[in-house]
Amino acid sequence: MERVELLKELVEENNTKILLIVLDGVGDIPSFEGKTPLEKANTPNLDKLAKESAIGMHIPVLPGITPGSGPGHLALFGYNPLKYEIGRGILEALGVGLEVTENDICIRANYAKVEEIDGKLIVLDRRAGRLSTDENITLTEKITNNINDINGVKIFMKPGMEYRSAMILRFPERVNSKMCEIFETDPQKENREVISPEPKNEESNKVSIVLKEFLKKVREILKNEKGNYLLLRGYSTPPQIPKFNEIYKIRALSIATYPMYKGLTKLLGMEVKDVDGYSIKDEIKVLKENFKDYDFIYFHIKKTDSYGEDGDYINKFKVIEEFDSFLPEILSLNFDTISITGDHSTPTPMKSHSFHPVPVLIKSPYVFKNFSERFTEKECLRGELGIIKGEDIMSLLLAHSRRLKKFGA
Amino acid sequence: MERVELLKELVEENNTKILLIVLDGVGDIPSFEGKTPLEKANTPNLDKLAKESAIGMHIPVLPGITPGSGPGHLALFGYNPLKYEIGRGILEALGVGLEVTENDICIRANYAKVEEIDGKLIVLDRRAGRLSTDENITLTEKITNNINDINGVKIFMKPGMEYRSAMILRFPERVNSKMCEIFETDPQKENREVISPEPKNEESNKVSIVLKEFLKKVREILKNEKGNYLLLRGYSTPPQIPKFNEIYKIRALSIATYPMYKGLTKLLGMEVKDVDGYSIKDEIKVLKENFKDYDFIYFHIKKTDSYGEDGDYINKFKVIEEFDSFLPEILSLNFDTISITGDHSTPTPMKSHSFHPVPVLIKSPYVFKNFSERFTEKECLRGELGIIKGEDIMSLLLAHSRRLKKFGA
Repeated sequence: MERVELLKELVEENNTKILLIVLDGVGDIPSFEGKTPLEKANTPNLDKLAKESAIGMHIPVLPGITPGSGPGHLALFGYNPLKYEIGRGILEALGVGLEVTENDICIRANYAKVEEIDGKLIVLDRRAGRLSTDENITLTEKITNNINDINGVKIFMKPGMEYRSAMILRFPERVNSKMCEIFETDPQKENREVISPEPKNEESNKVSIVLKEFLKKVREILKNEKGNYLLLRGYSTPPQIPKFNEIYKIRALSIATYPMYKGLTKLLGMEVKDVDGYSIKDEIKVLKENFKDYDFIYFHIKKTDSYGEDGDYINKFKVIEEFDSFLPEILSLNFDTISITGDHSTPTPMKSHSFHPVPVLIKSPYVFKNFSERFTEKECLRGELGIIKGEDIMSLLLAHSRRLKKFGA
Repeated sequence: MERVELLKELVEENNTKILLIVLDGVGDIPSFEGKTPLEKANTPNLDKLAKESAIGMHIPVLPGITPGSGPGHLALFGYNPLKYEIGRGILEALGVGLEVTENDICIRANYAKVEEIDGKLIVLDRRAGRLSTDENITLTEKITNNINDINGVKIFMKPGMEYRSAMILRFPERVNSKMCEIFETDPQKENREVISPEPKNEESNKVSIVLKEFLKKVREILKNEKGNYLLLRGYSTPPQIPKFNEIYKIRALSIATYPMYKGLTKLLGMEVKDVDGYSIKDEIKVLKENFKDYDFIYFHIKKTDSYGEDGDYINKFKVIEEFDSFLPEILSLNFDTISITGDHSTPTPMKSHSFHPVPVLIKSPYVFKNFSERFTEKECLRGELGIIKGEDIMSLLLAHSRRLKKFGA
């Protein structure tokens, strides 16, 4: 039996409250002074909490595998990230802030510079000369002002960073993944011909017709622009994934500042509250205003990851200290079970997500406690939770909040 | 998704170099002075390396399962040893130094003493009175001098230890496992009739005819010998197994002194260099001469296992000390990622392979380090890698040499 099926069978409702705090990319490896940012940070509140909690490490996917934010979060929410995959186009659409429904095909659309040579459309620059984000916004507006609907299929589009954008084809009815089996138009190298979005089966034929008509119009609208075409990739439909709130029979709230995390949790069936600003303080405000109405709250802090990606050791440990300063306020809300973890590690020396295990803390009345001194990678490696799978965390949170019945008699 | 499929998708080439040193059967349990051979051995170089590395334990197959050399090595090379099995006949053939191709059916052929009683061929001694290896060599020569080819199928045979030998039927075309579905001829008990190698399906009919003809000739050739017949078992075809170098997109070299390890790695697609001698020094010579031309080197040391099987505690820890003395030379070659481990444990008090976890070390720039004092079983049980699967090692080596892309966005 699959884990989520087992949990669905065992779960029962009660009035406990669970808080899952995700410090995105918090895990690291030793660098400056031989310390990780978690070791370097002065975190009196987190230290105290670690002593009273169970800590350990989790592996989001498999040892050695570096998770993207999608698989990393799916694991935290209890899904097998090798079974449930979220298409590239979906994440891109969620990332730029497009809302994704079950009637949508999502597509990455990148501005490019093309030229017609001997009747063939040749890609001169796949990134349209590193188009600026501002130029992108202007071009995308031009397209959305001129194209709303093709053959009854609604078209939505939003600019991303630089030359990247995402678009959605919204059908009157639910879509299926067969409809996405269409050739990607990006030839992947410069000075090659643009590929036509031909269908690979009968079901994708209708979609192909819409895309061809769309690209014809785009070519016309952008003809005098620096980015004069769009290269389409990553056609994808929303994943066939059981809803979070339905598996766990739980009223779930998502608090995040970045569109991708808001979109992903919405797709999983959580309610999403907008945060007015990007600071931890702004998020705490939303938490305090809303926590009473929910049983489970996902609370996402992005900056630990952003500074990791930038290789900015100092700001990474400082944002951990900032989070620590808000911890008493969070604890005062009296959640029954609290977890603090990351969706993956983002070591500052690597400036990228990594395969390293991720520190995890679980506070509940049912832990051994007095086993660890601090919430650091090394302490977590020796913590009472041991090294667990990312998927295990959600089971443990439900268990610690006594929301899981006995399995078998 | 299966692990090797996932890795194949994520792997990308770069110019890093990986060294996997397998101290066969190195793991042990405490005995003399309450210490394991790894604890007893004086290993200043290995101690220093352990401090700078990540260490842990690996379980080759499952807790409690004692791996043969086949499954133990498959796990180290990243294959699920429960999915990919290597037939007994194949390992036997590789072990005696026969080269196995995709056109081959491999068979264990054991010398026996038989007698015709009432027109029936009865087995008097299944081991031909514990035939000596020398007698085996003589008998095998007699057979191979007289039989080369039956019905267009080439016959190869090589003596093993005592009464054991291995043979290969080499067909003009690729074989399949259906062709091996033939009754084994060994009745498993003395004073029973030899079983005829009858086919179990249509595809094995041709093979059965060859075997019957072969046995008829063997009976004639050996009629006056101590071992006057061959009992056939373990018919097997080469495993349908994705090639190591193709999954990992890596130029792989195998350095080993024993035929079985050379044969197994060749079967997986590695290049095998012959070693002139059996000592670690002889193997180091081959390593130094060839490491520049490969990305991945498998370096096998057999004696730790042999002494374990003999229950020879003193020589087991001495061979570990001998290996330690060569470590500076190995480290001077500047591999980016080095792993030292075993394919299984061979505790001296047990004089056999065992189910115990196996110490593993990974040296790379991306480990926590300063976490462990020595490379011993007890330190490994508390090491930063934790207790992992044998299969995880290859994923980790690729990850530490930054040869794996991010999984998902």
